[in-house]
Amino acid sequence: MISHHTLQEQAADWFSTLQSQIIGELEGLEQEYCTQKNLPFHGFSKREWSRTATDAQAVPSSRKSDEAEGGGGLTALLEGQLFEKAGVNFSKVFGEFAPQFAKDIPGAAENPHFWASGISLVIHPRSPLVPTVHMNTRMIVTTKTWFGGGADLTPMYHPVEQDTQDFHKAFQQCCDRHDPAYYPKFKEWADTYFYLPHRQETRGVGGIFYDYINTGDLDADFAFSKDVGATLAKIYPEIVRRHMFESWTPEQRAHQLKRRGRYVEFNLLYDRGTLFGLKTGGHTESILMSLPPVVTW
Amino acid sequence: MISHHTLQEQAADWFSTLQSQIIGELEGLEQEYCTQKNLPFHGFSKREWSRTATDAQAVPSSRKSDEAEGGGGLTALLEGQLFEKAGVNFSKVFGEFAPQFAKDIPGAAENPHFWASGISLVIHPRSPLVPTVHMNTRMIVTTKTWFGGGADLTPMYHPVEQDTQDFHKAFQQCCDRHDPAYYPKFKEWADTYFYLPHRQETRGVGGIFYDYINTGDLDADFAFSKDVGATLAKIYPEIVRRHMFESWTPEQRAHQLKRRGRYVEFNLLYDRGTLFGLKTGGHTESILMSLPPVVTW
Repeated sequence: MISHHTLQEQAADWFSTLQSQIIGELEGLEQEYCTQKNLPFHGFSKREWSRTATDAQAVPSSRKSDEAEGGGGLTALLEGQLFEKAGVNFSKVFGEFAPQFAKDIPGAAENPHFWASGISLVIHPRSPLVPTVHMNTRMIVTTKTWFGGGADLTPMYHPVEQDTQDFHKAFQQCCDRHDPAYYPKFKEWADTYFYLPHRQETRGVGGIFYDYINTGDLDADFAFSKDVGATLAKIYPEIVRRHMFESWTPEQRAHQLKRRGRYVEFNLLYDRGTLFGLKTGGHTESILMSLPPVVTW
Repeated sequence: MISHHTLQEQAADWFSTLQSQIIGELEGLEQEYCTQKNLPFHGFSKREWSRTATDAQAVPSSRKSDEAEGGGGLTALLEGQLFEKAGVNFSKVFGEFAPQFAKDIPGAAENPHFWASGISLVIHPRSPLVPTVHMNTRMIVTTKTWFGGGADLTPMYHPVEQDTQDFHKAFQQCCDRHDPAYYPKFKEWADTYFYLPHRQETRGVGGIFYDYINTGDLDADFAFSKDVGATLAKIYPEIVRRHMFESWTPEQRAHQLKRRGRYVEFNLLYDRGTLFGLKTGGHTESILMSLPPVVTW
């Protein structure tokens, strides 16, 4: 339990550090874009939030105590020129799952206490030619401990083959550094997960998705999740750079806004994190920061 | 069973007739608006669809036959000036529920065959000062038979007290014509149903919601559902007329687009009809016609 505690602190610190790093990368690109285009530059606005008893709607108030329910996070939002809406969120929360959720969560049926920390981001560029991206990595502790996460790329106009290849290759190399069995498994998981049955369409070109990772060597599992975050922080800015100064047409923009509708449909109908967060009294503003800034149907 | 069949035909005919009537009303308003504003007028575009075996995803293909699965509907969509997006849909479908859905539907556990017909509409005016409205009435037949439906008003800017009062009064009078117990019950059902727990907000100002209505006198139950439809067809155009020529500011429009996000959140996270339709292989384009044309988050 001591070593878990240490690992939990390390993981939370890393998620927070990664958040700062990614914010820095994105702000750099935003600034470069604004300078070149002679547009006013604004950086991320950051807001700390605390998980209060009121947020934790799912837990009957009779069972709450200030000691048992808490934590919070840092929400960072950029509403910019290059990045029309970029949300990068860090959270570290703990408490008790309500019985109706505890039964579906590994290790929580026996004891509803949990601790969770993670980073999640969704970036919606203004240009229809710059793909949207999502990434999330998290550590969860109940009576069991595990890591989960994923990253996927969603070109809003026609996917550029080189972007798709490079995105997949980056995560393949990332996975292969840790376990050669990971990539095929986690890529397929992403293909299955990021899918809209009612449209019979995938969300974007996929990526990787993984969950319940505890190989018995949690340090190694943590190293893998760190690598996933670092990989995203490297490959996505490369892809942005390729397209950020390409000009686009109103037709391409209209197409993007329609495709963003699919993103909303996925997130509100199927995304496990979104649905779970909203049902368990998570921080609504942070959870729904994933939704695109302007959408048409 | 004979009398049910006759009633089913009557109900389907009525839903279809009501669709034509409402389309006529809305087109009349749209035309009046376009004439006055000197804007090009376009009416509803209509599309018939058939429920094919492919749509009925929820039923294992081994159990399908052309005789057992079928029906279709008429989708009518106006993308206009006064009515930025108005969808008025009629459907009459039949088939078998998949086992995982049958167990939750009255009378379907014993025998999965169903027949269903209904009309549903969602109208999103362009002006933030003209409220959005939703209405749905339906007849469902399994081994049981019942009517369900509802109507609710969603002002996107500050609700106008007179509109709210008149909308509620119209449905109160409608309910009272059939059963004095209906209105208090169905109004409260609407207040409970049209609610976004994650926002701790209602969707709009409510209205009525009812389901599983079978009093033993199905002709009377049908008459009530007819009255609900007719009430909407009368009161909504009145409310539109009050505000359709009022001018609005960009700030009011921006507010409307944000509030429309709540409408999307409700429909994709909670709306029973939407979720059920999408999960049972309904006609996606018709189901999601309820989503607003332009939305911001």
